[in-house]
Amino acid sequence: MKVLVVGANGQIGQKIVKHIQESEEHSPVAMVRKNEQKERLEKEWIDAVLANLEDSVDDLAKVLSGVDGVIFSAGSGGSTGADKTLLIDLDGAIKMMEAAEQAGVDRFLLISAIGADKRENWSEEIKSYYVAKYYADKALENSSLNYTIIRPGALVNEPGTGKVWASTDFEYGKVPREDVARVAVASLTAEPTYRKAFNLLSGETSIEEAVNRL
Amino acid sequence: MKVLVVGANGQIGQKIVKHIQESEEHSPVAMVRKNEQKERLEKEWIDAVLANLEDSVDDLAKVLSGVDGVIFSAGSGGSTGADKTLLIDLDGAIKMMEAAEQAGVDRFLLISAIGADKRENWSEEIKSYYVAKYYADKALENSSLNYTIIRPGALVNEPGTGKVWASTDFEYGKVPREDVARVAVASLTAEPTYRKAFNLLSGETSIEEAVNRL
Repeated sequence: MKVLVVGANGQIGQKIVKHIQESEEHSPVAMVRKNEQKERLEKEWIDAVLANLEDSVDDLAKVLSGVDGVIFSAGSGGSTGADKTLLIDLDGAIKMMEAAEQAGVDRFLLISAIGADKRENWSEEIKSYYVAKYYADKALENSSLNYTIIRPGALVNEPGTGKVWASTDFEYGKVPREDVARVAVASLTAEPTYRKAFNLLSGETSIEEAVNRL
Repeated sequence: MKVLVVGANGQIGQKIVKHIQESEEHSPVAMVRKNEQKERLEKEWIDAVLANLEDSVDDLAKVLSGVDGVIFSAGSGGSTGADKTLLIDLDGAIKMMEAAEQAGVDRFLLISAIGADKRENWSEEIKSYYVAKYYADKALENSSLNYTIIRPGALVNEPGTGKVWASTDFEYGKVPREDVARVAVASLTAEPTYRKAFNLLSGETSIEEAVNRL
């Protein structure tokens, strides 16, 4: 599967690109905003395209030509304001869904955040961020796409363990970004993850087993 | 019709309350956040309730008990950040729609902004504000409510003329807040506005005729 990674320069996105590149089944196309990012990836023999989530749906659909699936791991990040949360995490994500529908790309994985699906679980300090996640997730669930929504707990930079807890139940906890990336790549062709949203924390189960047991 | 005005302390909301109070058909319930606002309204013999758009859907549904219709004119305003735009203009509006559905209140009018329905018409300087309006409008159109979405042009404080242009076509222009308030109240029982969104500018047609001609 040829997979467009949106947010390929982000902390999780970089790891997703690496794991797709290392896989035997899939090949990555890294969507980045800056030419120097594109050049750096190409030096490592990774396909890259220049695009911006503030572009139009039509322009985003062009980037999806020849692509079989999308992993959306973009986020405006903590250093920009809530106006970028609206433009990137909410409208950017939904425009990419519309572009996928337009381009006939069926498979769409979205990295969301634990608890995003229920207002009572939103963390008070980043409540407005959760609003964006909530409506982006809902839009994907209401789309015609074959979606998977991965809702990781608190992201940490510790090395991945390859052992996770993936469930539609809700619990608080942490998970290394490395394991989130691996779960995303493992989910690409794991049918139990199709048209499903699940929470993801560090756990006891191997990633392969976890995504195939959902 | 007993009408809950959400954002009753806002610039348009105050005028909406006044026009409902003066009408023979309707009576207002002003939803406000502060006790001193409630007391001030009650001194003018206007019913008022204390509630906050950051409350839960269940709490908002309680406020709707005995109410026949809602006019939502709340907005986080220019002085707060985009995080409040997410919490009030987007999630607050949609929670109020869910509360109306829960409480069995059928009629729901929303004050939006001209051009909100098409990304290419969003003003560049306040693009993130338009993201919130766009998704709130869409949620209302997809709800089970008997909605009307009024999308005024640039709001001005000049006195109302009672003459407007109301259309599903798109044009840039201005409109006094006073006339927006009058159009909202006139739309409450005007069947041509039911389940419809329209743009509103200053124009040549009387308000009564304009809303009944849509």
